[in-house]
Amino acid sequence: MPDTVRMSLDEIHDLSTEVFTANGMSPSNAQVIADVVTAAEGDGTHSHGLFRVPGYVSCMINGRVDGKAVPEVSNAAPGLVAVDSKNGFSPPAIVAGRPLAIKEAKSQGIAALGFRNNGNLNALWWDVESFGEAGLIAIAMSTTRSYVAPWGGDTALFGTDPIAFACPRDNKPPLVFDFATSASARGEIQVAAREGHAIPEGWALDKDGNATTDANAALEGVQLPFGGHKGNAIIIMVELLASGLTGANFCFEAEDQAANFGSADSGPAHAGEIIILIDPAGYHGEFLGRIEGLFDRILAQDGTRIPGDRRYANRAASKEQGVECPMALYEQILAMKAA
Amino acid sequence: MPDTVRMSLDEIHDLSTEVFTANGMSPSNAQVIADVVTAAEGDGTHSHGLFRVPGYVSCMINGRVDGKAVPEVSNAAPGLVAVDSKNGFSPPAIVAGRPLAIKEAKSQGIAALGFRNNGNLNALWWDVESFGEAGLIAIAMSTTRSYVAPWGGDTALFGTDPIAFACPRDNKPPLVFDFATSASARGEIQVAAREGHAIPEGWALDKDGNATTDANAALEGVQLPFGGHKGNAIIIMVELLASGLTGANFCFEAEDQAANFGSADSGPAHAGEIIILIDPAGYHGEFLGRIEGLFDRILAQDGTRIPGDRRYANRAASKEQGVECPMALYEQILAMKAA
Repeated sequence: MPDTVRMSLDEIHDLSTEVFTANGMSPSNAQVIADVVTAAEGDGTHSHGLFRVPGYVSCMINGRVDGKAVPEVSNAAPGLVAVDSKNGFSPPAIVAGRPLAIKEAKSQGIAALGFRNNGNLNALWWDVESFGEAGLIAIAMSTTRSYVAPWGGDTALFGTDPIAFACPRDNKPPLVFDFATSASARGEIQVAAREGHAIPEGWALDKDGNATTDANAALEGVQLPFGGHKGNAIIIMVELLASGLTGANFCFEAEDQAANFGSADSGPAHAGEIIILIDPAGYHGEFLGRIEGLFDRILAQDGTRIPGDRRYANRAASKEQGVECPMALYEQILAMKAA
Repeated sequence: MPDTVRMSLDEIHDLSTEVFTANGMSPSNAQVIADVVTAAEGDGTHSHGLFRVPGYVSCMINGRVDGKAVPEVSNAAPGLVAVDSKNGFSPPAIVAGRPLAIKEAKSQGIAALGFRNNGNLNALWWDVESFGEAGLIAIAMSTTRSYVAPWGGDTALFGTDPIAFACPRDNKPPLVFDFATSASARGEIQVAAREGHAIPEGWALDKDGNATTDANAALEGVQLPFGGHKGNAIIIMVELLASGLTGANFCFEAEDQAANFGSADSGPAHAGEIIILIDPAGYHGEFLGRIEGLFDRILAQDGTRIPGDRRYANRAASKEQGVECPMALYEQILAMKAA
């Protein structure tokens, strides 16, 4: 038996949709989550692709996330759009809030889209890319679960709380970046543990609060912010904006509640996300032209690149060639069609 | 002769004001810049205190910055306030734009205040603190001059482009942080060069593009972003928002123009700054109460602190005791009264 199976992006979308609906997700939510899975596979960010499908199914089955949730959209202020994700997966909440948020940002020049009660954390580049395609600058921040110690401390308190950014470009896909504000994504440590190799210094402390390069010790201990005290300040900002501002759980509150949920999967996150949207034509009309001059200067230096370009290259290739899925994962997902 | 002179904050303010007006600054601008100098000394951020006074004077004399500039404020969109700093010092532009920006943020829920043609780069915590005191969340970013190479490259392109953040608190001064998005502030490398000690790895490359811990080699070479590729992404965001969006110079454009200015002081920066303002009561009324729960959890861990608290401690002490100014600097500034 081969180790992998090659799938077209259409096959990935069809399989995901079928598995999600077979396990109780509403058809409209299944379409959107399948879009995310397919986009992540196509862009080579496999940690948000088919790899997540079994988890999406199991958290519906154990009741941690509501696959049938219908997000509720309202205007909290002229420039503030609020979405209650109703403990559903976050991508349908993005889709629900998007039209009003785009309208407000284009009429006011700036707007924010705030989410509370997110059931999961999405690949944040997906959340912002569509705003970039709609001609808006987008800055997104979201909270997760407590894995990261505050700078100077040794106990998990913050999430790996990602930040994403999209900036529209003229006749090109938007510049998009997305990264965890912890020194590494949690998945990177999990991979190191599975493969038995060390992690770099600065990623984590062990359970006694000592610096460690042992991946298993790191998973039992806490992760650290990226960039030292500066990254720590950024994480605090993300917690305040993505959760404090929107009315979502802080990461530590989700952990407190999880203790009462009674599942190995831990309790509902009721996580938060904020997306700040700015119309780049608001201040002057030359934005799109001028920024190309900056990008040209960056790319004039060997060894540099524009954030997001590697994903776009992957996307172009996978549209033609499809992607390889590990056979074991493929068969695990296939078996879920008959749930 | 003693090495230092102890000055009260009032004495610092009076001396700064007198020196600025004696050298051609308008009285209203002199009041504001003296506020910044005094606040920086009081908070222990001496690199923006009296240390800057000779530079403020020299750049007025050589024409790089207009000490009499009158900033021009306009509404670019309902939520976008634009300030043309007219190549003056940036603090009077902050003061000029503040009332309208606060009004828009409170009525819309979110607003932005964008500056172009800033003559200098200010201590960014000063720029955001007053918005925090007015009950608003503020995120500021500004551009400077080209000192920092893009990640993977070896040639100066970006500024040390700082980010600052203010968050109001109930019956407490706002949480405020402020840091350069380069691995170190330029002044930290200058101090290491003067004192003859090495700088940490990861701060800079020498003029041949090799990693260096030699401070002099670093000053001839380029600085690096903080936090690796993640910090690099943040710097690109700062350039796009603080300069691209507002219509100010990108850092590299200021360098290109400086070549024609004919002064060792280099040419006008025409730098940019963006301040995004959010009303924390916009989404729900419990923000101020809930965030104290997060701060309590941070401070429950030994070795942690809330960003900005060290400056507030310095402030309380310096109000009582004044601050020490190096005698050579004091005499240099005194001599400027008779310009």
